[in-house]
Amino acid sequence: MEPTFDAVAIVGPGLVGGSLGLALRRRGLARRVIGIGHRAESLDVAKRVGAVDETTLDAGQGVREADLVVIATPISAVGPVARAAAGRLKRGAVVTDVASVKQSVISTVREALAGRDDVAYVPTHPMAGSERRGAEHADAELFAGSVCIFTPLAGTPASAVHRLRAMWEAVGARVCTLEAETHDRIVARISHLPHLVAAALVLCVSEDEAAFSGGGLADTTRIAGGAPPLWRDICQSNAPEVLRALDDFAAGIGHVRDLIAQDRFDELQALLEAAKRKRDSFPERRRPR
Amino acid sequence: MEPTFDAVAIVGPGLVGGSLGLALRRRGLARRVIGIGHRAESLDVAKRVGAVDETTLDAGQGVREADLVVIATPISAVGPVARAAAGRLKRGAVVTDVASVKQSVISTVREALAGRDDVAYVPTHPMAGSERRGAEHADAELFAGSVCIFTPLAGTPASAVHRLRAMWEAVGARVCTLEAETHDRIVARISHLPHLVAAALVLCVSEDEAAFSGGGLADTTRIAGGAPPLWRDICQSNAPEVLRALDDFAAGIGHVRDLIAQDRFDELQALLEAAKRKRDSFPERRRPR
Repeated sequence: MEPTFDAVAIVGPGLVGGSLGLALRRRGLARRVIGIGHRAESLDVAKRVGAVDETTLDAGQGVREADLVVIATPISAVGPVARAAAGRLKRGAVVTDVASVKQSVISTVREALAGRDDVAYVPTHPMAGSERRGAEHADAELFAGSVCIFTPLAGTPASAVHRLRAMWEAVGARVCTLEAETHDRIVARISHLPHLVAAALVLCVSEDEAAFSGGGLADTTRIAGGAPPLWRDICQSNAPEVLRALDDFAAGIGHVRDLIAQDRFDELQALLEAAKRKRDSFPERRRPR
Repeated sequence: MEPTFDAVAIVGPGLVGGSLGLALRRRGLARRVIGIGHRAESLDVAKRVGAVDETTLDAGQGVREADLVVIATPISAVGPVARAAAGRLKRGAVVTDVASVKQSVISTVREALAGRDDVAYVPTHPMAGSERRGAEHADAELFAGSVCIFTPLAGTPASAVHRLRAMWEAVGARVCTLEAETHDRIVARISHLPHLVAAALVLCVSEDEAAFSGGGLADTTRIAGGAPPLWRDICQSNAPEVLRALDDFAAGIGHVRDLIAQDRFDELQALLEAAKRKRDSFPERRRPR
């Protein structure tokens, strides 16, 4: 396949960044993939698994020759990375990020890139991942069949958006476009709320009690195994929408409680039926884990 | 292997009852398995998949020759079945049930069997199953590696408990003994609460929003696909413990909300870390689904 970008720099080649590097290299979609990080050990892993061709600890240096810079760090590092890279970016480069929250990240990156009208910033959020971390879990097929949400800014050259879209489609993703605000509202409900709910559920159960579980509990709480610092960042960056989602959910739990306490089991059954019908329409994980 | 019971009657040979029948027949653990139900179609399925040798719609007739009667119906049918069978049970027969709630079911069955001092009732709860229903999903290995909780009554002959235990162990389960009250408190937390939480979570998300999900949502809400009438029965039969579990969980969600609303993200991270540590110790589902 024709490379969509010649040299791609991936800042933070962990699970998501590393999987992208692996997918690009396996499919011949980039001539060079440069891995940038702040820990030599993690970069060594990324290189060993074949996610990157070369590595550097110096973000400014690493991005100099890149046609595409993918910021795949935890949210709290996106701003520092963008600031470190801003002065060194190649004219005409495309910059993207893969953060789970868009409005706050977009404003941070735009600020860092102010004055660089010769580079195009295209925010995205590939809806793929797992509770595992690190390039050792990188998977060239992570994005196959997944959705990648683009939240492009007004005024970004269409050609930059188009090239990035071609790249994501080439690694198997279906690209959708949303307003950043809509994105943040939706992911608060489909991703951030479930994470907090899973954590709260785990904390209601002792390890001795969990030992009796038949497996449903494991499924329901699996995502609570995700990395706490990443989820802290996410909740902090999307706090208003996460709070709204928590409030709606708490009201739902309160309603269920009332139905049981007030012996309204016909209504409880109707509620469980509505939930089942909706749940049966949800997309499944695409591969066995 | 030596049969543990000669003739076994399974009332309600669906997913759990049918899997037990299949496991007993495949391993030569019973000479005859009699399937009893109230729908001919379901019994035909049970016979076709090999879960039972013969079938009948007449519970009184079906239990007459059984050395073991397994009541594997939804909770609301356990009482009627026990009453229909009571006068017909063979002298020396063992009666068991596999219901997800023990205190209320035990009291119903004891009442139905009052006066039958010549039969032994041993309540159990195999912690295996799935959100699927019916003998078409029966699996001879469903119990392999699972836990089967026994909540035996004082005064039950040890030999009856021993024989039933040998049967569950022969199909692969590890048998644990709990007080019925302890059982009901634990399953409210590890099973009934997660089910209600999954349903409430589903109802916070629209189908359009769910279409963007990467799979974590599917895991977290999978159990909400379970049969609403069964779960209604369960919540009703274990209402006091389910309410206590819901209250603890709601307090936990309220605490998470406060941490976010009050910008206490160090504490949120500590909470997520505690949840992750505990979650990492939970038993996983034993087989890919």
